[in-house]
Amino acid sequence: MRDTDEQAAGHAPPLGDMDAEEFRRHGHALIDWVADYLARGGRYPVLAQVRPGELRSRLPASPPPRGEPMEEIIADIERLVLPALTHWNHPSFFAYFATSASAPGVLGELLAAAFDAKAMLWRTSPASTELEEVALDWLRQLMGLPAGFGGVIYDTASVATMHAVAAAREALDLRVREDGMSGRPDLPLLRLYASEQSHSSVEKALIALGLGQRSLVKVAADGEFRMDAGALARAVEEDRRAGALPFCVVATVGTTSTTSIDPVPEIADVCERHSLWLHVDAAYAGSAAVVPELRHVLRGCERADSLVTNPHKWLFTPFDLSALYSRRLDVLRRAFTLTPEYLRTTEAGEVRNGSDYGVQLGRRFRSLKLWMILRYFGHEGLAARIREHCRLARLFASWVEESGDWELLAPVPFSVVCFRARPAAAGETDESRAARLDALNEALMNAANAGGEIFLSHTKLRGLFTLRLAVGNIRTTEAHVRRAWELLNEKLREQAEA
Amino acid sequence: MRDTDEQAAGHAPPLGDMDAEEFRRHGHALIDWVADYLARGGRYPVLAQVRPGELRSRLPASPPPRGEPMEEIIADIERLVLPALTHWNHPSFFAYFATSASAPGVLGELLAAAFDAKAMLWRTSPASTELEEVALDWLRQLMGLPAGFGGVIYDTASVATMHAVAAAREALDLRVREDGMSGRPDLPLLRLYASEQSHSSVEKALIALGLGQRSLVKVAADGEFRMDAGALARAVEEDRRAGALPFCVVATVGTTSTTSIDPVPEIADVCERHSLWLHVDAAYAGSAAVVPELRHVLRGCERADSLVTNPHKWLFTPFDLSALYSRRLDVLRRAFTLTPEYLRTTEAGEVRNGSDYGVQLGRRFRSLKLWMILRYFGHEGLAARIREHCRLARLFASWVEESGDWELLAPVPFSVVCFRARPAAAGETDESRAARLDALNEALMNAANAGGEIFLSHTKLRGLFTLRLAVGNIRTTEAHVRRAWELLNEKLREQAEA
Repeated sequence: MRDTDEQAAGHAPPLGDMDAEEFRRHGHALIDWVADYLARGGRYPVLAQVRPGELRSRLPASPPPRGEPMEEIIADIERLVLPALTHWNHPSFFAYFATSASAPGVLGELLAAAFDAKAMLWRTSPASTELEEVALDWLRQLMGLPAGFGGVIYDTASVATMHAVAAAREALDLRVREDGMSGRPDLPLLRLYASEQSHSSVEKALIALGLGQRSLVKVAADGEFRMDAGALARAVEEDRRAGALPFCVVATVGTTSTTSIDPVPEIADVCERHSLWLHVDAAYAGSAAVVPELRHVLRGCERADSLVTNPHKWLFTPFDLSALYSRRLDVLRRAFTLTPEYLRTTEAGEVRNGSDYGVQLGRRFRSLKLWMILRYFGHEGLAARIREHCRLARLFASWVEESGDWELLAPVPFSVVCFRARPAAAGETDESRAARLDALNEALMNAANAGGEIFLSHTKLRGLFTLRLAVGNIRTTEAHVRRAWELLNEKLREQAEA
Repeated sequence: MRDTDEQAAGHAPPLGDMDAEEFRRHGHALIDWVADYLARGGRYPVLAQVRPGELRSRLPASPPPRGEPMEEIIADIERLVLPALTHWNHPSFFAYFATSASAPGVLGELLAAAFDAKAMLWRTSPASTELEEVALDWLRQLMGLPAGFGGVIYDTASVATMHAVAAAREALDLRVREDGMSGRPDLPLLRLYASEQSHSSVEKALIALGLGQRSLVKVAADGEFRMDAGALARAVEEDRRAGALPFCVVATVGTTSTTSIDPVPEIADVCERHSLWLHVDAAYAGSAAVVPELRHVLRGCERADSLVTNPHKWLFTPFDLSALYSRRLDVLRRAFTLTPEYLRTTEAGEVRNGSDYGVQLGRRFRSLKLWMILRYFGHEGLAARIREHCRLARLFASWVEESGDWELLAPVPFSVVCFRARPAAAGETDESRAARLDALNEALMNAANAGGEIFLSHTKLRGLFTLRLAVGNIRTTEAHVRRAWELLNEKLREQAEA
């Protein structure tokens, strides 16, 4: 189709962009398509049913020499790309943390793409800069954090946490920004503390920042997967005695495996006693604090130096948008500000320039979608949806508890259920039972996912293969959760009969 | 408007998302609006004409307790947000590096927002993972890089460069990943070399990675702003003698101030002699290599260990999408791979998992828009547009050269012109002339920008205040460039009369 001159000339003029009429035509068609996709996300298999390499093998090895009609490109998206998608917007996506791009957020992204702002300086995008301040302050109020917390938007919590730990390092006043850490025999081993349930992004941040895995102390968790604050205090004291330099603690509100909540008030006590930067990873559960009766989950976080929460996780915001809050943005700024001549502006003293706060120079206009979502749903609308997700998780957990064939493996403080099948079998040892149930639950998960009707993921808790059902998609209803439960029980019966 | 129950109930049901019909209605309206915005971007002042704090002061201090109608939100975007935007998609945006979001790219972003994929693992988005491989390999072919270069998409060149330098650090086999750099008296000072014209992101990467500003050696540039390879070799040798450990060189193809091209072949010689990782920053000018007769600008880059180029700069791709290529992706992977239990998948051995290659765990489906753009415009279409931008810059430069009132301050290898006004004045010293011309050119820039018709930025070259005219927007035509020239001359006459 693409080798005639007429065609090439017809759809792609030699210079300039696609013309407005053509954009309208494809744009309207795609809006209709997206409306349907969002409303009926359940029509596709939630977990992609393709084999590794399948999509790649169906695409040309080389780029087209001449332009191709947009109709063909869109047809290929439907025919080739869609089957290779795992549908995060599917209402039966229960894996990892279930997320969603709400419709107002998608409209926000459409506009942001058209504006194409690079918000490195106030001047290069006053709207993005000031809407970021406004939207983040609104979200701060919704979560009940004190006014002293200022915010910065990053792409992901991993990057936000990396910047928080860099600020903690900068706060040491050891001239790490200026002199670095290599060739520094004067520098003791820096140590950061996080629970054994903390997210892998903490360790990655330490690797990137040149502090290394050795600088991470994984503190033991208690029976409910919460950091043991006593163990934390002892680890800090031991390190001090051994000549290391404790500098930071990462507490988690809503850990990734079980959504457990570290005892932030007790951890803050340790941090204050030892002058450690306290960073709170509330990437998932920060959104829960928008619900008035759940606001207590951030208890103690008003004493944190920094806190990250991800509206792209559980606040219906299209990926990516991670919000870092800090009472000490000045330290973060000190760690990263660097203005070359070609970016100097006369208003620099009176405005905030986003690139002062991080590695990234250009920054997308991410605040637009968040601001639109906060307005469209309002405080009550957001709270109602998050409250409902927690109710659905508790409901699922109650079915698990009432069934003799299944058991909960962790408390359910938010919208994630950790559980497993545990049908009885005669005459087996503890060890053979553990192995049997691990294999059974992995098989159950794979069988459930293979059908494409639901998508669950797993973790390991106390060495046990654990299924996770995470509720978080804005379109998930009780019917979807109920169907997941039925399906799992069907699969369990099939396994028993096999 | 938002305080009646009927209204709240009418537009925001208590649970779920915006309904499909409402999404269609707003989506169609916004598509029409965006079509017009892209086609007639010139109707808004290119540089926002607001004062610092103006937008913020016009927005409520607190979030709405109840949801608001989307009509009101969109009306506020037109009324409040638009005047506070600096319009990067404006065809007379000539500041920094001029960029653009082409229409097919905007459609790609609409779809990506709806899919809302988090491509941390192949399993969580086979389409994103494999389309990234395909689109980056196509782009590699278009730029003429050898097949040994594999690619990874990041958000920005700053982040891509940070990862490249982290890979260079990992390649030293000094256990920095495992043991870090603090408390390491065995570790010599690590040193990285880049020209004095290199981008600030190199220094920021070193700060973030814990190597510090001291680890950066700024190598002198020659009279045409290109790194002096002899000075590089001497600096490396001196450092070795002094006991430091040279580990990386960043060469730039298309520096930010003047778009000068470092002599990569000579730099590669030095790197090979001293076993240094060679990273090439081709964030802007990599796209030029898509033009067959300009492919030579990447001469020597086939010997680089890594190279970054930004399709979101000069390949008509909505921000953000930065492509890092490397012949040693295995080293990058070694530096960053870290898979917690909850992300383990059975297919891990046979697929690529994006999060293995960096700090970010979740990754947007960025490859979709790039793949759509490469197909829609095709090789010839992309090359024609980039070629035209270079022609327009040379044309502008010819006007500067022919005019007695203006002068070029740097060669014009691509689409950026560095120049200044230099009207004669009687009886002044060299010093007073320099001060007069600096003040005059700054005043000219501010006067031209204040009108909102064009947006120029500046740099300093050899201490002189230098105007920059950067062509790069897909909708910029000769008429826009000509009008910029007229306007600057009008402002010059006004200054002379003042």
